[in-house]
Amino acid sequence: MDTEERKALIERFFYPKSIAVIGVSSNEKAFTTLYLYALMKFGFKGKIYPVNPRGGTIYGLQMFPNIQEIPDSVDLAIVGVPGKVVPSALEDCLAKGIKAAIVLSAGFSEAGDEGKKLQKEMNTVIAKGIRVIGPNCFGIYCPSGGITVKPGDNFPKENGPVALITQSGLFTEMIVLQSRGMGIRFSKVISYGNASDLNEADFLELLADDPDTKVITCYIEGVKDGRRFLETVRRAVKIKPVLIWKAGQTEIGRAAAGSHTGSLGGSEAIWNTFFAQSGAVRIDSIETLIDNTIAFLHLLPNCGRRVALVSGSGGVAVTGADICERSGFTLPAFSVDLQQKIRSFLPPVIAGLRNPFDLADPFPPAEVLTPVLETIAGSGLIDTLILQRIFLSVKGPRFVFGTLPVPEEGRERLKEIPVSIRDRFNIPVVMVLNEELSDDDKIEFETDRRLLRSYYLAKGLPVYPTVERAVKALANVVRYKERFHKEVGLGGQS
Amino acid sequence: MDTEERKALIERFFYPKSIAVIGVSSNEKAFTTLYLYALMKFGFKGKIYPVNPRGGTIYGLQMFPNIQEIPDSVDLAIVGVPGKVVPSALEDCLAKGIKAAIVLSAGFSEAGDEGKKLQKEMNTVIAKGIRVIGPNCFGIYCPSGGITVKPGDNFPKENGPVALITQSGLFTEMIVLQSRGMGIRFSKVISYGNASDLNEADFLELLADDPDTKVITCYIEGVKDGRRFLETVRRAVKIKPVLIWKAGQTEIGRAAAGSHTGSLGGSEAIWNTFFAQSGAVRIDSIETLIDNTIAFLHLLPNCGRRVALVSGSGGVAVTGADICERSGFTLPAFSVDLQQKIRSFLPPVIAGLRNPFDLADPFPPAEVLTPVLETIAGSGLIDTLILQRIFLSVKGPRFVFGTLPVPEEGRERLKEIPVSIRDRFNIPVVMVLNEELSDDDKIEFETDRRLLRSYYLAKGLPVYPTVERAVKALANVVRYKERFHKEVGLGGQS
Repeated sequence: MDTEERKALIERFFYPKSIAVIGVSSNEKAFTTLYLYALMKFGFKGKIYPVNPRGGTIYGLQMFPNIQEIPDSVDLAIVGVPGKVVPSALEDCLAKGIKAAIVLSAGFSEAGDEGKKLQKEMNTVIAKGIRVIGPNCFGIYCPSGGITVKPGDNFPKENGPVALITQSGLFTEMIVLQSRGMGIRFSKVISYGNASDLNEADFLELLADDPDTKVITCYIEGVKDGRRFLETVRRAVKIKPVLIWKAGQTEIGRAAAGSHTGSLGGSEAIWNTFFAQSGAVRIDSIETLIDNTIAFLHLLPNCGRRVALVSGSGGVAVTGADICERSGFTLPAFSVDLQQKIRSFLPPVIAGLRNPFDLADPFPPAEVLTPVLETIAGSGLIDTLILQRIFLSVKGPRFVFGTLPVPEEGRERLKEIPVSIRDRFNIPVVMVLNEELSDDDKIEFETDRRLLRSYYLAKGLPVYPTVERAVKALANVVRYKERFHKEVGLGGQS
Repeated sequence: MDTEERKALIERFFYPKSIAVIGVSSNEKAFTTLYLYALMKFGFKGKIYPVNPRGGTIYGLQMFPNIQEIPDSVDLAIVGVPGKVVPSALEDCLAKGIKAAIVLSAGFSEAGDEGKKLQKEMNTVIAKGIRVIGPNCFGIYCPSGGITVKPGDNFPKENGPVALITQSGLFTEMIVLQSRGMGIRFSKVISYGNASDLNEADFLELLADDPDTKVITCYIEGVKDGRRFLETVRRAVKIKPVLIWKAGQTEIGRAAAGSHTGSLGGSEAIWNTFFAQSGAVRIDSIETLIDNTIAFLHLLPNCGRRVALVSGSGGVAVTGADICERSGFTLPAFSVDLQQKIRSFLPPVIAGLRNPFDLADPFPPAEVLTPVLETIAGSGLIDTLILQRIFLSVKGPRFVFGTLPVPEEGRERLKEIPVSIRDRFNIPVVMVLNEELSDDDKIEFETDRRLLRSYYLAKGLPVYPTVERAVKALANVVRYKERFHKEVGLGGQS
């Protein structure tokens, strides 16, 4: 695609001024009607023209019996008629001069031989001069363009730096909603289903070029053109990180992908090679997608392999050290001088002064935590600081102390310390906030943990529920930085 | 150990009638005083004798200036004096005729050469005829004996089928509290620290023999006698599953373990061999410990490798299939007859009738869900049923529908269906209840999810937050069953 072509696609699909929704019915639970509802409720600022052969009104809008009668030009058509009439609906769009359509309808290559034939038929119409996303998809969510997918009326209105291209409509919804509470906001989200025309490689090209997008994430069941996809990813990763979840890699998974989006998967071995060659980050679940997105947003460019792991308790220091070493990190030993300096801030009972460092107090006073972290962060020995099981929240101590009286003073002040350390020493600080209580009647602790998590994420400190997940995500960022961001190289004091 | 010896240890350590707490001070935040507080608050029914050289009273109890003045026999001594005076405190215990002591005090082999010398000195006293758990530990939690660790005053009072032996005092607390909301209850929990006398192999022997314990879980930093440990585990796994988290396997982790419990770790290669030979289940985090415990409690003896994966949406069916195949499960194809039968209950739009089965409706009506699951469970093709992203809860649909009106009718009835299928077809049903919303102001959905999770766990259906975690835990149970429980073999309809 040339620059003009990319620009035209971006304008029509992500920033349309007028949208026709073809196939709206008076049944409020029908898919296309739900789409229309979401678009209106989300607050699309342009013009919306619902199309239904019987006319009438819906949600206060006039329905047009056919697209030709819309008294205006249309930038984007949303096609949600039954599969069999999609080709003729696209012909109508062409006649109206529409150059971009999203086909929501199902019943194409995912639905056996009949469906495959129908998809071919549709493609002959597409070849006449209209670009199509879909079929069998949920649409596009682009907050800066005021548009959303079905069912995305409750998606955030704010723009953000993350793009998502996904073959599963459901994952559009799951990923946006699950990551919302983790502070992740999106530039452009594309549910693209069977990819009969525009496909994953096209979207990657658009997004690599998009100044609003800093991290690209993908859920892919099968690619149309392996060689082009590899080349496109290779170019994209040099500009920004590309996180790819390739599903349908196993035999059964491939068969399932076939009946989900009509995709041909490619064997696991092929994909192993792809990830080794391309430099894309391999994702294997919604959790790892979110974990890694947060890491890439907050840890570039300063993170590195020399880690200090500071814990409030001993057991988690041991297990944290295991995970760091397995993931290729070093925990530099503290020099005798450094040990002496740290010791001067601590009560005499503390035995080992190693890295991982066990504070032996899950709720240290600020007068201890601040100078200890300052000393470690300022030592010149480390690139990244991980804080684990230090109760920086207000309610945290209450469950450790059980029914004992709890020291509440100074707890709010305590939570600012990691932010201040990051700011003053320019060293990434990663927070591990465990979900300590799973009881259905102890939800107040989870609320407290989430508030604290929101606080840190808003300040740009990544937060993980376990040190395992923190270290695995950090490892991907460091690997990416070493491979593609060497010139940035601001990390560390060395 | 012979039977008599085991019986005596169980009586003295887990069911003492009188406990002396040596080293209580008037400082309420001192470790030994916190221990006393937890024991009293937990509701120990026997006699408690605090010992403090200065006498006086604490929490309404008389403090004895020394152990000889206690006007009664003492079954168990809790020793919490400063490390250096532990040997003489144990001498006093011997003089009083006490045969069992738990040494909470730190400052032994975990604390350098001085500490190692002190531990040797203590061991010469132990050799005179007292059995010791510790030093550097948190004690024992045994609800049926009415005793608890520090800080375990808020631990459940009910007995349960899971035992835990752990070298980390902190993990005693974290594991009991994190698993409480997952319906896990304990028979005996032992925090054993440096293991200067009784060690992991002794506890395994006791617990393998314990009729109250159905599953043994362990967190171990280092073993005293590798050969004996391997033999003990081999014997134990033939009686009940043994789940072992071996920390300190990497070089840095081993060093950290050294300064935490004075343990010598053993290389990762040695432990790989150990797990292959022993049949113990390998654990690597608190999450996997809890996941696997739930699986072993609820899935033996009927689970098997032939799985049906039923999802409310397509994307999760594809990714779920990948995970099943990677973990060694088969998803048997549905026969044409079976497909026809299932199709008769479904709306005509549903395309594929494969396994994994995509219901294409995350909130199916009971009139659809019941006969579909009955048909699959009764097909004779499968051993285990996994249900994924079907919103069986009351609030679930509300966030999928966003601001749309939500069909509330029949939702409470819906949640009983999986339980009924399990009961009528004698096939394990595994529930996947995703955490869909992470927002700090959407906690009501998490509350709802936890209530639903509690409901299923109470009915004996394991619940996981992701299909990955469900399948990994299930795989361990099936492997264990195939290796050690062949004679049970009730699973499947084949």
